Amino acid sequence: MPQLKIAIAGALGRMGRQMAQTVAADPRLELVARFHRPGSMGEGLVERDKALALADVVVDFTTPAASAELATACAARGGPALVIGSTGFDAAELEAIAEAAKKIAIVRSGSYSLGLNMLTGLVEQAARAIGPDDCDIEIFEAHHRFKVDAPSGTALMLGEAAARGHGVELDDVAKRARDGLVGPRNAGEIGFAVMRGGSIVGEHSVSFLSQGETLTLSHAAGDRSMFARGAIAAALWVAGRPPGEYDMHDVLGFASS
Amino acid sequence: MPQLKIAIAGALGRMGRQMAQTVAADPRLELVARFHRPGSMGEGLVERDKALALADVVVDFTTPAASAELATACAARGGPALVIGSTGFDAAELEAIAEAAKKIAIVRSGSYSLGLNMLTGLVEQAARAIGPDDCDIEIFEAHHRFKVDAPSGTALMLGEAAARGHGVELDDVAKRARDGLVGPRNAGEIGFAVMRGGSIVGEHSVSFLSQGETLTLSHAAGDRSMFARGAIAAALWVAGRPPGEYDMHDVLGFASS
Amino acid sequence: MPQLKIAIAGALGRMGRQMAQTVAADPRLELVARFHRPGSMGEGLVERDKALALADVVVDFTTPAASAELATACAARGGPALVIGSTGFDAAELEAIAEAAKKIAIVRSGSYSLGLNMLTGLVEQAARAIGPDDCDIEIFEAHHRFKVDAPSGTALMLGEAAARGHGVELDDVAKRARDGLVGPRNAGEIGFAVMRGGSIVGEHSVSFLSQGETLTLSHAAGDRSMFARGAIAAALWVAGRPPGEYDMHDVLGFASS
Amino acid sequence: MPQLKIAIAGALGRMGRQMAQTVAADPRLELVARFHRPGSMGEGLVERDKALALADVVVDFTTPAASAELATACAARGGPALVIGSTGFDAAELEAIAEAAKKIAIVRSGSYSLGLNMLTGLVEQAARAIGPDDCDIEIFEAHHRFKVDAPSGTALMLGEAAARGHGVELDDVAKRARDGLVGPRNAGEIGFAVMRGGSIVGEHSVSFLSQGETLTLSHAAGDRSMFARGAIAAALWVAGRPPGEYDMHDVLGFASS
Repeated sequence: MPQLKIAIAGALGRMGRQMAQTVAADPRLELVARFHRPGSMGEGLVERDKALALADVVVDFTTPAASAELATACAARGGPALVIGSTGFDAAELEAIAEAAKKIAIVRSGSYSLGLNMLTGLVEQAARAIGPDDCDIEIFEAHHRFKVDAPSGTALMLGEAAARGHGVELDDVAKRARDGLVGPRNAGEIGFAVMRGGSIVGEHSVSFLSQGETLTLSHAAGDRSMFARGAIAAALWVAGRPPGEYDMHDVLGFASS
Repeated sequence: MPQLKIAIAGALGRMGRQMAQTVAADPRLELVARFHRPGSMGEGLVERDKALALADVVVDFTTPAASAELATACAARGGPALVIGSTGFDAAELEAIAEAAKKIAIVRSGSYSLGLNMLTGLVEQAARAIGPDDCDIEIFEAHHRFKVDAPSGTALMLGEAAARGHGVELDDVAKRARDGLVGPRNAGEIGFAVMRGGSIVGEHSVSFLSQGETLTLSHAAGDRSMFARGAIAAALWVAGRPPGEYDMHDVLGFASS
Repeated sequence: MPQLKIAIAGALGRMGRQMAQTVAADPRLELVARFHRPGSMGEGLVERDKALALADVVVDFTTPAASAELATACAARGGPALVIGSTGFDAAELEAIAEAAKKIAIVRSGSYSLGLNMLTGLVEQAARAIGPDDCDIEIFEAHHRFKVDAPSGTALMLGEAAARGHGVELDDVAKRARDGLVGPRNAGEIGFAVMRGGSIVGEHSVSFLSQGETLTLSHAAGDRSMFARGAIAAALWVAGRPPGEYDMHDVLGFASS
Repeated sequence: MPQLKIAIAGALGRMGRQMAQTVAADPRLELVARFHRPGSMGEGLVERDKALALADVVVDFTTPAASAELATACAARGGPALVIGSTGFDAAELEAIAEAAKKIAIVRSGSYSLGLNMLTGLVEQAARAIGPDDCDIEIFEAHHRFKVDAPSGTALMLGEAAARGHGVELDDVAKRARDGLVGPRNAGEIGFAVMRGGSIVGEHSVSFLSQGETLTLSHAAGDRSMFARGAIAAALWVAGRPPGEYDMHDVLGFASS
């Protein structure tokens, strides 16, 4: 199988540098070009148009404006495909990307962790299969001592996936903390438990607790390289796909729900 | 919603008694009849034909021969539906059940643990989505000190699900134990780790280990009531289904693979 | 080594029956007598004085009044030694036991779980060795869906052990729940996280989280037999000891702190 | 409390640089001098004798020969105290350090992880308190995919601590792997289970499994900063101690065993 030709946008940013390192270490991939803002040269950078001519897929962790413009440029050329990791798009930028996706294949996700995307999909599916009469859902998360909010955004996202599976709204069933004489657990409740300390990057687990058995789906994050690896999985998946806008659940093969 | 009417076959057996207890505690269900072998009466038992006339679903943990005969009898009457938990069928018995399933809906499974069936399905799905280039799969299991074989049959079944997801045969990639100077891990390997001690009923976990993150899917068994609860979930699912032979993956809503 | 001769007080109570079963299964022990209230006979029971004459150690899970009276009777005879599992003593009863302990050896504990007593001792020791500047202490507990209070009494007891190790009062440092914009963790804080669901008998873990490493001490309860086993360990330890009142930390060999 | 004055030997080595970073971040400490080999200057380095004159404690991760010479030099001056992290000493070097320890206080350890040293001590203590008749000991470890040996050296060290606690030799009771029809667990056996995958830095857990309960003591390593933090704890402990050679178990307050 020939190597997939990858170009990296935003090559001087933190994720751009991480991507370059991860792509270079992957025998399935060839790093054919790195570019940054117009006019940014040196360190082996090339101009954007040259990069687009060389690549099968461009991986782009930049800014919403830059990503939207890049999508338009790729679509005008009829390729390459795009993997977009920027976040915080406004309506006009989303519209530009949707327009581009009529001509080229684009994966766009707010998080490229394969594990967390997988976990979210599995949680929704398990919650759909084992309803609130048959199990109690509880979510545990642990983070380093400097994290200021609780529960974590990811824990709430997992709670939303579980609630979707149960066919309810998280706000209606969330039990965000338990302290004191709280009484027996309410059926259908989705509980949260929070730990803070040390330098933990991020741990999440979702438990489905029944009479006599417990199913637990969990994820532990180690370092930022996991995002680069997920973007690579997306690049390998998107190459050669028909035009369209995809997300990580498509990459991971979850049926739409 | 009216209660589902349940009859219990093999009512004097261990699972029959457990079923009666679990059905009685579930407000979605009404226990309308219990029967055992022809001629077994007393303790509130009725004759089989009376039970079949009263029930929406019969739950049957008996013997292969008794289950096959029961399926034939239900089919001849055009109902009720059946949940079969017997194991060890021969070809003729399986054929009788398949024939009956042309007239009535039958769920048949070798294990009714909702959690373990769920786990098996999720493991296959995760392995299919995150290929061997992107993760290392390792299976851990712990059981009480009296268990004589290692790894457990369930651990091997989970290994087969993972191998199916990776598109390989477990025998070709299983690393059943590591001791000594084993060298770096082989890509694609599925490893097993075994713990024995105390009175642990059964714990299984399947880890997907990548650079920078780990996804772990795990199950802990507490007691036999979990099998009764899974059979109830099957009964609730099968009531009113079109004729056919189903298994727990259908009950849990996994797409066939 | 000859078998230790055990008599069981309160033999018709739940713990009395469990003790008989556990003693019978232990080759280090001989069950020489079972007794209940004065006048309770049948089922192989004997009168108390006969039991005291036969036994090396009496194991007593009864009531505070009965235990105090039993201690006095054993002391008057100069033996046997006593293992007391009753709880809720008033001052006069405690005084009677202390008086008896001048003549015979008595172990008395509010909980005979070897594991939980061990855990409490190890937590205090670890907290003393690794001070609040070097680690963050967090306590997690999980129980079945019917438990009405949070955190569990055992979790608070573990928190007190950790606080003792750090030389502070738990009330001054406890963070019993986290929800919302709670800000970074305070140094010295001891946090609690609570999970409720299914039929979990009881799980507790105490984590010492530092920059770059985490030490976790945890306990999982399976069933009530663990209390009987702890009482047996106490009986084996107390036989032949000099008079005095001991607790499970003595049995486990923790230096007084 | 005035800050403790720290000098760093081997300042240009990997641990020397890590130490400088960790000391600088700790308000209890003042970094007064960094030195490397004789003649190594620049980057803020000073000569060794100047460093010794300024410091309360020298932290030394260098080579056996350099450490032995440094100990002799500190002893000749009557201080400062020493924390030695070098490994692989020969008899003559150990003799030189023992001689120096008659004049100054020296902590020397093969590993400065507070957590792993704590874990080893707790495991030995728990194994001593809960004998082989009352629990089954099992050790689990997980490491990254590149580790070539199994079980890990640390897992074997934990096994030795457990065996010491049980009063036996590890070689006589170790069950290093289980595969096939292994039969029921032998009483007194110490089992090992191994997981390999992803980028796991190192996880170890020691379980004490009894009828009805399980006690688990575990450690997860995140990064090398944990060794620097342990060396700092040793430095804070050794300052002002009487002459002698100490190890991390003294720092952590374990009674000698």
